[in-house]
Amino acid sequence: MSANRNSALDYAQKNRDRFLEELKTFVRIPSVSTDPQYQAQVEAAATWVADQLRSLGMNNVAIYPTARHPLVYGEYRCAAPQAATLLVYGHYDVQPPEPLELWQSPPFEPTLSGEYLVGRGVSDMKGQLLAGLKAIESILKADQLNVNLRFLVEGEEEIGSPSLEKFIAEHQDLLGADLALNLDSGILAPDFPTITIALRGLAYFELRVYGPAGDLHSGVFGGAVHNPAQVLCELIAGMHDAQGRVTLPGFYDRVRPLSEAERQSLARLPLDDAYFLKITGAPALFGEEGYTSAERIGARPTLEVNGLYSGYIGEGSKTVLPAYAMAKISCRLVPDQDPAEVHQQLFDYLKAHAPSTVRWEVIQHAAAPAAMIEPDRPEVIALSRAMEQVWGRKPAFKREGGSIPVVAQLKSILSMPTILTGFGLPDDNLHAPNERLHLPTWQRGIETLIHFFYNLTE
Amino acid sequence: MSANRNSALDYAQKNRDRFLEELKTFVRIPSVSTDPQYQAQVEAAATWVADQLRSLGMNNVAIYPTARHPLVYGEYRCAAPQAATLLVYGHYDVQPPEPLELWQSPPFEPTLSGEYLVGRGVSDMKGQLLAGLKAIESILKADQLNVNLRFLVEGEEEIGSPSLEKFIAEHQDLLGADLALNLDSGILAPDFPTITIALRGLAYFELRVYGPAGDLHSGVFGGAVHNPAQVLCELIAGMHDAQGRVTLPGFYDRVRPLSEAERQSLARLPLDDAYFLKITGAPALFGEEGYTSAERIGARPTLEVNGLYSGYIGEGSKTVLPAYAMAKISCRLVPDQDPAEVHQQLFDYLKAHAPSTVRWEVIQHAAAPAAMIEPDRPEVIALSRAMEQVWGRKPAFKREGGSIPVVAQLKSILSMPTILTGFGLPDDNLHAPNERLHLPTWQRGIETLIHFFYNLTE
Repeated sequence: MSANRNSALDYAQKNRDRFLEELKTFVRIPSVSTDPQYQAQVEAAATWVADQLRSLGMNNVAIYPTARHPLVYGEYRCAAPQAATLLVYGHYDVQPPEPLELWQSPPFEPTLSGEYLVGRGVSDMKGQLLAGLKAIESILKADQLNVNLRFLVEGEEEIGSPSLEKFIAEHQDLLGADLALNLDSGILAPDFPTITIALRGLAYFELRVYGPAGDLHSGVFGGAVHNPAQVLCELIAGMHDAQGRVTLPGFYDRVRPLSEAERQSLARLPLDDAYFLKITGAPALFGEEGYTSAERIGARPTLEVNGLYSGYIGEGSKTVLPAYAMAKISCRLVPDQDPAEVHQQLFDYLKAHAPSTVRWEVIQHAAAPAAMIEPDRPEVIALSRAMEQVWGRKPAFKREGGSIPVVAQLKSILSMPTILTGFGLPDDNLHAPNERLHLPTWQRGIETLIHFFYNLTE
Repeated sequence: MSANRNSALDYAQKNRDRFLEELKTFVRIPSVSTDPQYQAQVEAAATWVADQLRSLGMNNVAIYPTARHPLVYGEYRCAAPQAATLLVYGHYDVQPPEPLELWQSPPFEPTLSGEYLVGRGVSDMKGQLLAGLKAIESILKADQLNVNLRFLVEGEEEIGSPSLEKFIAEHQDLLGADLALNLDSGILAPDFPTITIALRGLAYFELRVYGPAGDLHSGVFGGAVHNPAQVLCELIAGMHDAQGRVTLPGFYDRVRPLSEAERQSLARLPLDDAYFLKITGAPALFGEEGYTSAERIGARPTLEVNGLYSGYIGEGSKTVLPAYAMAKISCRLVPDQDPAEVHQQLFDYLKAHAPSTVRWEVIQHAAAPAAMIEPDRPEVIALSRAMEQVWGRKPAFKREGGSIPVVAQLKSILSMPTILTGFGLPDDNLHAPNERLHLPTWQRGIETLIHFFYNLTE
């Protein structure tokens, strides 16, 4: 290993405590993108990221406004001629912290708990973004990079990246690169390095069902009109069959079947039923018949209810026959499903099944197709080697159940493939109370990225 | 008509504006019984009622504490020997005002709008209670009553009267009377006086379904565990069959069939489909096959969803797979259903249909059987004559869809029948935003009650 590589690794070790303090500062900014009341804090997080890029010596650092939350840009031009260019992608926004009462420490006051740091966004993905920045800082302190870098850090990932597609399309020269490095992924266990080769897509909807003109007294009118909450439940109940399959018409038509080879590869991951039972805490597992849990999560599409609301949900009782009922419903998509087609399939299902006793509408909140990368690309090999250098074992390849719209957009607009990494763990409580980051794995992540940058050219 | 009767009617006319001001004062007290944050205001409303009784010259006025909200008591002893005793029942608590954004004026600032007074509780039942008190005041100004009165005014009616049964059982001497006069009912239209001869009962439940130990990321885990919101929807969807009948096992076993005579009587009420379409504003009517809307509301039991909650219900999207889902579900009961049996039927249904992939529990919030009174009782005839004296037409008899637990409790504990009256209207927006009281009907109500008290002995 080169002396410079070693000095960068050494720097990362020595500055570990300061890196952690900077992460805490970042997490203290409640950059919740879905809720307009956090607007100012989301902007403060963008400024914080821009300041970080400037302190790394990046050029042309700028904050680009969008219709909602700004994007942060910056770049590094290396001395080597003909060097490759990497587009480093991250997001500085976080999920809402609710339900607040289930947090053991305040969500925006990062708190140490054993080997973990607890707080909203520590793992998804302020910790991952900072791992990338601190790996670069560690290299640049004593050396220079042999790749060009461009940074694209958005503030709308947790709301489905509504501004990103337009921004990419309108700034193709600014963003052009050979490959995107997306840090918003994770590994399977602290001792089990993994590389994500596929992501599911997302189509997120809100279904609203309207019955009577206003809330009615359930005694005075109950029995004479169709209860929209009941209709909503009946519609949702009909969206799965007895085999756990989604019933939207044509939902599986474009789903790429799993090859026997990939089924065997997925079966080698440490993702058996005991693992999923433990990590979810569910009384039992459940899913589409004929598939293992790892297959259900990585390679099969789903339809989930993300939220339900109707009528009175406070303490005690209120004898109301509600005028309105609402569900948030999202589909995770696999290659080669198309989010627009799924939207139409939901619409067709509702048209066929919603009774004329109610009115209904569907609002789409997010849409992104699934994505895959070829495991024999040189950059994937460079990352695989980096993990082996840090963990002492080869990483496994896995399919990720989550969705990252930017991966699909970079592919479709700029024909740019994405290499996905990141060092979150499955039990980090992403999108849930008590989100946490495993600090020893985070430190390994910084070291892995240092090796990765060197491996690209050495 | 006696001179005294006329002078009482005259007094009611002349004091109309003051009566209205007193009603406004009463409505300004936000006595929401279901929500603990209104505790002090609920107590203030009890004090206000006790002060009213004292100013009427009632004796032994007292506020009796309960586990939650106090009861107000008072009595009137008439000079006539062997006089009958009436127990006047009312409640001073109101429904929660939510959703606040749908009110056109503040719920606790009573506001005149044409012939209506708008505010939470104006019709249900602060206006009705005050109509009774003001009828008595009008008589006592120039005369005396020829019946003994006892007052029982509770503060927990809107939460199912949880303390009342115990209070009645422990104060049988205090409350003993020949008949209860319950003012918590209404008439069908301003020009259509009606007497309620039957009430539906109520069994109110909260069903909670628990899946994973905490909220999960719907991408990372979606497909591998059963979504409790989906399970809840499936359970609720199964609670009705394609004919709109409730599927809880044994639910209809004790339901008294409608006689042909009563079907004909109900058919004469002005309760056709056009009426229900207009008053509910629903796109279409819907209910149990084989019954008219009037029959569905008055003589058939129902199961309604009163509230639904799960996961994320704020603005935009959150990709959560919820740990928990909840529904408020209530059944309206008819003679001779038993609320405890219905509780067991719901439990049996859930035991048979809930999958082992979730845990569930049922909490009961309220329970009351249905009630009926014989239309040929002398007190019913006295009320019928009073309505004819005020409206110039005989009242119709109807069945009420709502529930009043006290009616059942007075019957079962004290063998006391209840005569139900009150002057609310079907479009008063009970339990809904913009609750209102039709003031000309309210004034007629005061006059009707004056006649009623005289008719009992003249």
